[in-house]
Amino acid sequence: MSFLIRAAREGDAGEVFALVRALAEYEKLAHLVTGTADQLRDELFGARPVVECVVAREGTADAEGTALGFALFFHNYSTFLARRGLYLEDLFVVPDARGRGIGKALITHVAGIAVQRDCGRFEWAVLDWNQPAIDFYGALGATLLPDWRICRLSGVALHALAGGAKSGSKSMTAT
Amino acid sequence: MSFLIRAAREGDAGEVFALVRALAEYEKLAHLVTGTADQLRDELFGARPVVECVVAREGTADAEGTALGFALFFHNYSTFLARRGLYLEDLFVVPDARGRGIGKALITHVAGIAVQRDCGRFEWAVLDWNQPAIDFYGALGATLLPDWRICRLSGVALHALAGGAKSGSKSMTAT
Repeated sequence: MSFLIRAAREGDAGEVFALVRALAEYEKLAHLVTGTADQLRDELFGARPVVECVVAREGTADAEGTALGFALFFHNYSTFLARRGLYLEDLFVVPDARGRGIGKALITHVAGIAVQRDCGRFEWAVLDWNQPAIDFYGALGATLLPDWRICRLSGVALHALAGGAKSGSKSMTAT
Repeated sequence: MSFLIRAAREGDAGEVFALVRALAEYEKLAHLVTGTADQLRDELFGARPVVECVVAREGTADAEGTALGFALFFHNYSTFLARRGLYLEDLFVVPDARGRGIGKALITHVAGIAVQRDCGRFEWAVLDWNQPAIDFYGALGATLLPDWRICRLSGVALHALAGGAKSGSKSMTAT
């Protein structure tokens, strides 16, 4: 069966968000999904989106079928290179459609966009227990950076730190 | 001595890029610095920048002194939240100016921007051997995500994968 890869359109947002939910289930992170398809649509097709999406669909350009997977990415930036990069936030293919090269086609498509835009790097994150994914990315030529860890502030902790900004501003210009 | 924190202006780019070099030395990654101050200036003050910068300077708004540090950040995106976040690419304070709360003032300032823009998360990466930084971020309330690793494609490997995009596109719509 054939499949096609193309930039997401407004009408894809519902199906893409359903795939986001499926990805979250796979990553055992379903409890973190609080967004909605409408919010995703608004971001992807708003006035100044920061994020872009490509979808894989069953069929051909003339006869599109079901959504099989998606890749969602945005620009990041390296000060060392003083160049933009691309960051792949999500890559997902529905379990039934695996083994057909769809994941590789999606990531290759985004790599092509990175090269076309003269990006210095193409990066993404992988869970250290997801060996199939690590092997897949290794086979594509990616390097796993062993010594970087992600720090995160959200919710109450983020607001608490930001809340210190006001008094911080005062003390900053004091002695 | 007092210091101030403000959004970077075009005239700051040279000093900020000198700080980028100093940061790279500290991280033992100086060999990776291939960009220039002009490239950084072009990105920060071009038509559609993806990255933003705040600087810390000696003195007050009326009498600014030397650049002491900077924070550089861009928007990322979480599909789970269907919301933008902020990603801190660099945070650096010159060694001579440490212990004065400048690093905390910079990161607090950016956290304030994240809250102001209704971002779901504020994230950054830290080297796992940089215990002073890990302790500092922990004290700010940040959580270190233990199980995510960064994958990277650049240079020859990126072009090699992207080079497969053309033949991939053909096979994609074949059976």
